Amino acid sequence: MTNWEELLAVSRADAPADTLLSGGRLVNVFTGEIESVDIALHAGRIAGIGSGYDAVERVDLNGAYVAPGLIDAHVHIESSMCLPAQFASAVVPRGVTTAVTDPHEFANVAGPDAVRFMAAAAQGLPLNVVVMGPSCVPATPMATTGGAVGVEDLAALRDERIIHGLAEAMDYPSVIGNAAGARAKLDALAGRPIDGHCPGVTGPALSAYIAAGVGSDHEAVTVEEAREKLARGMVLLIREATNARNLDALLGAVTPSNSRRVCFCTDDRTPVDLLEEGSIDGMVRRAIERGVQPIEAIRMGTLNTSEWLGLNGVGAVAPGRRADLWVFDDLDRPEARVVYAQGREVAVDGRLCVDLPSRAMRPPRSGCAVDAASLELAIPARGTSVRVIGTVADQLVTEHLHLPAKVEDGYAVADPGRDVLKMVVAERHRRTGNVGVGFVRGFGMSGGAIAGTVAHDHHNLIAVGVDDASIRAAIDSVVEMGGGLACVNGSKVLASLAMPIGGLMSNRPIVEVATSYRALVGAARELGSSLADPFMAMSFMGLEVIPKLKLTDQGLVDVERFERVPLFVDAA
Amino acid sequence: MTNWEELLAVSRADAPADTLLSGGRLVNVFTGEIESVDIALHAGRIAGIGSGYDAVERVDLNGAYVAPGLIDAHVHIESSMCLPAQFASAVVPRGVTTAVTDPHEFANVAGPDAVRFMAAAAQGLPLNVVVMGPSCVPATPMATTGGAVGVEDLAALRDERIIHGLAEAMDYPSVIGNAAGARAKLDALAGRPIDGHCPGVTGPALSAYIAAGVGSDHEAVTVEEAREKLARGMVLLIREATNARNLDALLGAVTPSNSRRVCFCTDDRTPVDLLEEGSIDGMVRRAIERGVQPIEAIRMGTLNTSEWLGLNGVGAVAPGRRADLWVFDDLDRPEARVVYAQGREVAVDGRLCVDLPSRAMRPPRSGCAVDAASLELAIPARGTSVRVIGTVADQLVTEHLHLPAKVEDGYAVADPGRDVLKMVVAERHRRTGNVGVGFVRGFGMSGGAIAGTVAHDHHNLIAVGVDDASIRAAIDSVVEMGGGLACVNGSKVLASLAMPIGGLMSNRPIVEVATSYRALVGAARELGSSLADPFMAMSFMGLEVIPKLKLTDQGLVDVERFERVPLFVDAA
Repeated sequence: MTNWEELLAVSRADAPADTLLSGGRLVNVFTGEIESVDIALHAGRIAGIGSGYDAVERVDLNGAYVAPGLIDAHVHIESSMCLPAQFASAVVPRGVTTAVTDPHEFANVAGPDAVRFMAAAAQGLPLNVVVMGPSCVPATPMATTGGAVGVEDLAALRDERIIHGLAEAMDYPSVIGNAAGARAKLDALAGRPIDGHCPGVTGPALSAYIAAGVGSDHEAVTVEEAREKLARGMVLLIREATNARNLDALLGAVTPSNSRRVCFCTDDRTPVDLLEEGSIDGMVRRAIERGVQPIEAIRMGTLNTSEWLGLNGVGAVAPGRRADLWVFDDLDRPEARVVYAQGREVAVDGRLCVDLPSRAMRPPRSGCAVDAASLELAIPARGTSVRVIGTVADQLVTEHLHLPAKVEDGYAVADPGRDVLKMVVAERHRRTGNVGVGFVRGFGMSGGAIAGTVAHDHHNLIAVGVDDASIRAAIDSVVEMGGGLACVNGSKVLASLAMPIGGLMSNRPIVEVATSYRALVGAARELGSSLADPFMAMSFMGLEVIPKLKLTDQGLVDVERFERVPLFVDAA
Repeated sequence: MTNWEELLAVSRADAPADTLLSGGRLVNVFTGEIESVDIALHAGRIAGIGSGYDAVERVDLNGAYVAPGLIDAHVHIESSMCLPAQFASAVVPRGVTTAVTDPHEFANVAGPDAVRFMAAAAQGLPLNVVVMGPSCVPATPMATTGGAVGVEDLAALRDERIIHGLAEAMDYPSVIGNAAGARAKLDALAGRPIDGHCPGVTGPALSAYIAAGVGSDHEAVTVEEAREKLARGMVLLIREATNARNLDALLGAVTPSNSRRVCFCTDDRTPVDLLEEGSIDGMVRRAIERGVQPIEAIRMGTLNTSEWLGLNGVGAVAPGRRADLWVFDDLDRPEARVVYAQGREVAVDGRLCVDLPSRAMRPPRSGCAVDAASLELAIPARGTSVRVIGTVADQLVTEHLHLPAKVEDGYAVADPGRDVLKMVVAERHRRTGNVGVGFVRGFGMSGGAIAGTVAHDHHNLIAVGVDDASIRAAIDSVVEMGGGLACVNGSKVLASLAMPIGGLMSNRPIVEVATSYRALVGAARELGSSLADPFMAMSFMGLEVIPKLKLTDQGLVDVERFERVPLFVDAA
């Protein structure tokens, strides 16, 4: 509850503020100008701006720039492989003080309670976490998930004030086609921001998607697509994810006249990227490097996002808003030197300087119930030609290949000489015993296997390997950790990372998680993988909503035809 | 209720639209560009934009421009002296399709039921009327009103979905000082748009006003004031009212970088101005004349306002929004040739081409209970020097003069030779019998009197005249009409306008009202008045919140000291 009496007394300069930031140069996102003014902070808010303020503590900014805290317009915190507190420890020192998150990864594992857990885990952090309601859990009925989020769950989460709006409406065919389930979810969050996800949707289909109530999109990849979406009234969220980098391309669609409708988001970033490259701060710097005016770039990471989402308490330095600020020295290359969250100095020189809340929170139940020994991994040769998932560098789409099967003793087996490895997706949530087995090209390993419980969006146990023994050992390693990632060769575990929270998140510090993750990628490379990040690549080989060919626990899915297909092209 | 099945089928181009506007040049307020596209309208909405649409009716725009319907960000419809339907008949043919209205004039007469009446009277019009909750009714306890709107009334109006936000928080000292009543009203509409009204407020007081939750202001009169308000985060509503013209001055504060935070409003316009000069359309043309880029000027009258107020169904041409459009031929001087409201062609060449809903609505009770014969108008000479309200040309502020009294037979009387006339404010709502009597300079009449029931904000019966007989006759004339305006000389009524609805609005067509109003002003000029509009001037001589000296039914008010003062400076 706001103590209005106290706040307004400070605003009026009738009482001293907690802190006065003096001598700074404010990046004024309202006017687009730099303004030399003092900023009075009190009780977590900005009380006043201008001269005439007194304070208990005075901080001389000595001409440094001060800007509103950055906002990530759309991020799956689970992709950091860490809990929200550790995600915060990576991004807050960068100047990101608000993250709009869609916990749909964990929700696929544990349903609406996962959403509640993520919201609760974000309480008391120096990061303002705004939770959006996952709209598509499960993504399709062609994979088995641990949880589901129905319209009644969304209504409950809305009434509990846990969710602010609807997260990416990925099932765009259902939205466009006015399917009852999709319509009911949009209606449940009517009047609130509804984020979109409509890769490549144009023309009348795009009009229908927007008419249905969707307000933004973060899937545009070309200038033409971005321009059409902007012209039709969508807010363009430019995404720069670990595995989907659209910033450089889409800046070509941004003009001084439309930039107010452009925001920045990271969507999915690995812990390594978050620590090395940062978050929205890195996008701001990159945009400036590419010729965007600095204040305009900062607006895309602040005011524009707060306006799109109706987050009127953040996104600008103005009386009454949260005192979330970052201080930097070089307007052409802003790097946070000091960060304030709710009026507290929370980070200095890239490191948090406050303690994160330490509390034992019990995450919702999630399973990793796979018995590797009993899995049927052998593939009797029922034909001579098999469907193979072909990876495409740096993309989530795959090729749908038909290749001759390599047959040994009546069984189709991996053929590392042609870079065709075995892939397994074992259901882990409900003990169904479902297992999908197939082949994938592009991982490049000449021996061993990798496995993990991160497999978008169903997050079953997924593995890619050369021989069944290595695959079983990798699965065993992951199961023993209660979820996580592993790289093995034969029976030897080369590297691993435990992620017991939903099989998606570690409870360790993000620096340690990043170190383990680097070791995992290094081990897979040692096995011969040529992919930049074979674990990230593997995690999308089971995603049955992105073309062309994918494998779930229920078998191979031809995404273009949206139906299951047999492994053998010429099955008898 | 939206028929989503039908709307989306049209959006997808799977079914024909009601109407297709083809061959037009869309003023795209999202991109700031002109775009040659077809626009499909269906069931009152914009269904789709682009090519590929079929329709029952095709309209070839032949290269004409088409823009989203204009929005008046803040207007008191009562100032048109007409009911909402007749206000609509004046502004809709101009391209104004949304009016954000604060019915605080009528609310001062009849309380929250007046708000309900104005909302109900706006149903079914070709104008989208958005009602804001009056925040300051009554304005002060120093005048007697017919109605009051308390915090519980605002909460009820909010829960009845009649009001969208809080209208101009005029009692800025109470907001800044955190007075309980003001705070409670802000809290009642928390999370919704809260319009401000803070003339000349700067520095820490401005910070406090904003910190309290106010988001906009329409009272800035100088570039410096406007710039400060913009920099502190207020949305700047540039006002061009009949009696408060700020557009030319404030355009100097608008830059390409801050214009997204600038909107247009008319606040108060007489029926004559509405018919001759127009509304927001006139502001757009004037802004263009003054050098604003046309699309930018149109944005200030459309998208900017819809974003500020969260009116996401209007303000732009986009799928799903209301099909409110205006068509014009000259981008440098846009004048509506055709107007569409909810997909219907509602006006052509400056005239409505649809019938307005005809229904008998009973307005809330309001009184005009003044017995002129029994009013005590004589002023016994209790001193030699009197306080006189000095009008200031084209301003609402007055001078606080001390002048020698003209005494005849022991009574202070009007002194037309020095342009000092008698002024009367008689309470009309509650039969209290209150009457305030004083003197005013600047009306210039050499004989006769004018009277009316429009007297901001309490709207008691106000009169200015040379002799008591004329004043009584003018009051009688107004009372006989059940409210309205009159100009008399002796016992002869020279001109009159009946306004029986609250004493504020006629139920006649606006063209007739304007004709009567012109006749009233002409008659007052015949009596010698040199004021451009003596009725408008008179209506502000009783407004006890605008400095320096004003007269209410309770007597003279020194606004700077905010207290009642005696008429005689040297009273015995």
